[in-house]
Amino acid sequence: MIAGLLAASLLAQTADLKTSVSAWVDAHQKAIVGELLDALAIPNVAADTPNIRRNAEHLRAMLARHGFTPEILDTTGNPLVYGALNVPGATRTVLFYCHYDGQPVDPAKWNQPDPFTPVVRGEGREARIYARSASDDKAPIVALMAAVDALKASGLAPSSNIRVILDGEEEASSPSLVPAIARYKDKLRADLMIILDGPAHSSGRPTVVYGARGIVTVDLTVFGPKSGVHSGNYGNWMPNTALRLATLLASMKDDEGRVKVAGYYDTIVPLTAEERAMLDAVPDDSAKMLQVFGVAAPEAGFPKLQDAMQLPTLNIRGLASSFVGPGARTIIPDRATAAIDIRLVKETSGEDLVTKLSAHVEKQGYHLVQADPDDATRAKFGKLAALRLNGPIINAFRTSTSDPRARALVASVTRTFGQPPVQLRTLGGTVPIAPFIEALGFPALIVPTVNFDNNQHEENENLRIGTFLDSIVTIAAVLRM
Amino acid sequence: MIAGLLAASLLAQTADLKTSVSAWVDAHQKAIVGELLDALAIPNVAADTPNIRRNAEHLRAMLARHGFTPEILDTTGNPLVYGALNVPGATRTVLFYCHYDGQPVDPAKWNQPDPFTPVVRGEGREARIYARSASDDKAPIVALMAAVDALKASGLAPSSNIRVILDGEEEASSPSLVPAIARYKDKLRADLMIILDGPAHSSGRPTVVYGARGIVTVDLTVFGPKSGVHSGNYGNWMPNTALRLATLLASMKDDEGRVKVAGYYDTIVPLTAEERAMLDAVPDDSAKMLQVFGVAAPEAGFPKLQDAMQLPTLNIRGLASSFVGPGARTIIPDRATAAIDIRLVKETSGEDLVTKLSAHVEKQGYHLVQADPDDATRAKFGKLAALRLNGPIINAFRTSTSDPRARALVASVTRTFGQPPVQLRTLGGTVPIAPFIEALGFPALIVPTVNFDNNQHEENENLRIGTFLDSIVTIAAVLRM
Repeated sequence: MIAGLLAASLLAQTADLKTSVSAWVDAHQKAIVGELLDALAIPNVAADTPNIRRNAEHLRAMLARHGFTPEILDTTGNPLVYGALNVPGATRTVLFYCHYDGQPVDPAKWNQPDPFTPVVRGEGREARIYARSASDDKAPIVALMAAVDALKASGLAPSSNIRVILDGEEEASSPSLVPAIARYKDKLRADLMIILDGPAHSSGRPTVVYGARGIVTVDLTVFGPKSGVHSGNYGNWMPNTALRLATLLASMKDDEGRVKVAGYYDTIVPLTAEERAMLDAVPDDSAKMLQVFGVAAPEAGFPKLQDAMQLPTLNIRGLASSFVGPGARTIIPDRATAAIDIRLVKETSGEDLVTKLSAHVEKQGYHLVQADPDDATRAKFGKLAALRLNGPIINAFRTSTSDPRARALVASVTRTFGQPPVQLRTLGGTVPIAPFIEALGFPALIVPTVNFDNNQHEENENLRIGTFLDSIVTIAAVLRM
Repeated sequence: MIAGLLAASLLAQTADLKTSVSAWVDAHQKAIVGELLDALAIPNVAADTPNIRRNAEHLRAMLARHGFTPEILDTTGNPLVYGALNVPGATRTVLFYCHYDGQPVDPAKWNQPDPFTPVVRGEGREARIYARSASDDKAPIVALMAAVDALKASGLAPSSNIRVILDGEEEASSPSLVPAIARYKDKLRADLMIILDGPAHSSGRPTVVYGARGIVTVDLTVFGPKSGVHSGNYGNWMPNTALRLATLLASMKDDEGRVKVAGYYDTIVPLTAEERAMLDAVPDDSAKMLQVFGVAAPEAGFPKLQDAMQLPTLNIRGLASSFVGPGARTIIPDRATAAIDIRLVKETSGEDLVTKLSAHVEKQGYHLVQADPDDATRAKFGKLAALRLNGPIINAFRTSTSDPRARALVASVTRTFGQPPVQLRTLGGTVPIAPFIEALGFPALIVPTVNFDNNQHEENENLRIGTFLDSIVTIAAVLRM
């Protein structure tokens, strides 16, 4: 009975928040969109230092206009823009992360003269703003400001102190972000980070993401003769290098796509019933995705997309050996290389998986070298290969679905919309700022809000107006968590 | 007793032929080498029609000078140069084939200003002539002329009527050769063709080759999603295209390098004891070859090079899928291709092996397409691949080692040198004029005579003088078969 009353009361509050914020957004739509269009008119490629500075100044003014105490934080690279807004009585601090730089542009490929002179096409909620960073990632900054204003206008305060950090180098892998932590430790202190970046689930529903996979890339090379040898004069007698690589790769997975490398999944923890239910509740339209990609069926061992995201991958992203096509020569190749990427989950370490993969290669009879083998090494070992790491390992991150801060956020969104958000336990891809999350040491959640078909990183990047306006309600719910 | 006397008599005859031809060659060395240097001074790239014509005229004059009735035979391409020399009482006609065109040149890569201005470096028998076609294939033409002269000077006649055909398009795959047969049938009629081309065995001993492998090349492509998809967003769920190709390729051979495609070796006929002995007698220096190539051991299933040449191959000559190296992207590739060459032996048909390979691919669950699959095909089949033929199939050829004409030739060389020549049952590589041999319909043998390290087809092609002079004795022995 009491539970019923409480539910009814929460539902009323929900309807209130959604109704009042929506009404305010409707009334101020022109000003909100105008503020975004102004922000999009400043070019923001990370390497364009003068314009990056203009963006930072513009955003500092925007934060001030919406009640934040703003600051430009200098770093070893592009400046961070910072804002603080304290709420009397709040016992929790939430740090919102967005970025204000954008991907480089090739204007010739756009359907408009200048990616930094925004163009609006279409009508009403279906209208779209076309400009670099329209979705990625200036829209969420403006939406956050609007949500703060909408709450204020509704006589509501955020339930936490707010900190905002705006990164000017995300599309360049945020090299200055982790080093800036030591310098600005006090300003960045919070209980939860909320990343406003990326597209919402393709269903268009509010989306909460608990984590993202990490990545490590390696090149696996099998060495054959010192240089390609004539396939007629030596074919059958000289071992075929490309076939050896193929056989080695084939040994790594079973017929259903599961990794056979010993111990690869050893550290994986079984899903809880709640997590299982959460994955099953994600409204993925597999049939539609397969149709778009032109593939009849997913890997037999991973029929459900969300399940596939919970395990590390072993993906061959490229193969190369001698030539294919007009340049092909009738030789036994001198080497064959597979470019591999391994997506990590929270429970796996990149070093560990690469070590296990190395052990697997050795178990197939290969002697591993780091550099191209010399004559003595060639004479000694029948099978030679190199497994070489490319670039840094980026770890996965994941906040526990049972974390009380996560529960509070999801509860607030659920109340506001009358149904739970789409909850993704693990994004398949990698978040470039994962090292920043790791270094800060408090949990992070991603609340991606823009339309999934926004052409992010490509030409004709766009933002659907209806999705943008709805995102203000979602962010208001987050502020009221 | 009689056998002993006969052997002694043959040995005397042997010593006679070798001694008298060698003495004549020694006495005329300057003139012989001069004749070759003159021939090398005429550029002979097949596409250089005016100079090809100059070569043809020059060779016609050379044939006339050495007692042949010469003729230039026009074709749809470059002219053939033809010569006939009848021997009173001869019951057999032997057709010698050489070619007078050479590979294109890149003078900047040569250690001399002009590949068509021959340079001699070194002293005595170790001296070498550097020029395009020095070895491939003008030297054998001049050596044949010298051998005819040397026999004549020794009071000996060739044991057969001689026909000579000099091809002007061999390095351009001899497109006009087979069509010319119908027009010049009578002139080309013979009992045996002897091809004077290519390097002698690396031991430097006289060499007789009974056949050569043919070739067919195919591209095997496995199709994945329509375009590369994000390896994070879809990794594990989306089947990996490159791994599928690797698994398919791995299924084609066992761990020792033998082809597992059903029926691949079905048409192979076991070696006779004589053939077995012949293969075992080839003085291949495997250890040296492995050292040069930088490989510790040959394929376990083919420990002996000559054995490896008696079976068809299945060689992956190239692999390609998306990118490896700096351009690598974290995607699941849209396609993966293996470029394959299959070397054929006399007992195998190219069509048959490709059909068996196709059946093998289908047996692994693939639906085979010819063109890139359309949406309906993509939706219907879980595994899609294409196996596409490149260019024409060139058949193998092989003359039986028990053919009486082959036995007569080998016996004559054995008598002359006091030991049998190196006999190669099957060259591993492919002879471009195999279709010509096939169309003529009588047996062919290759008597390759130049130094194995002649840099054929490359810059700084050369001819070792000692090997060249010895080849005149070998050819004289062939003329006396």
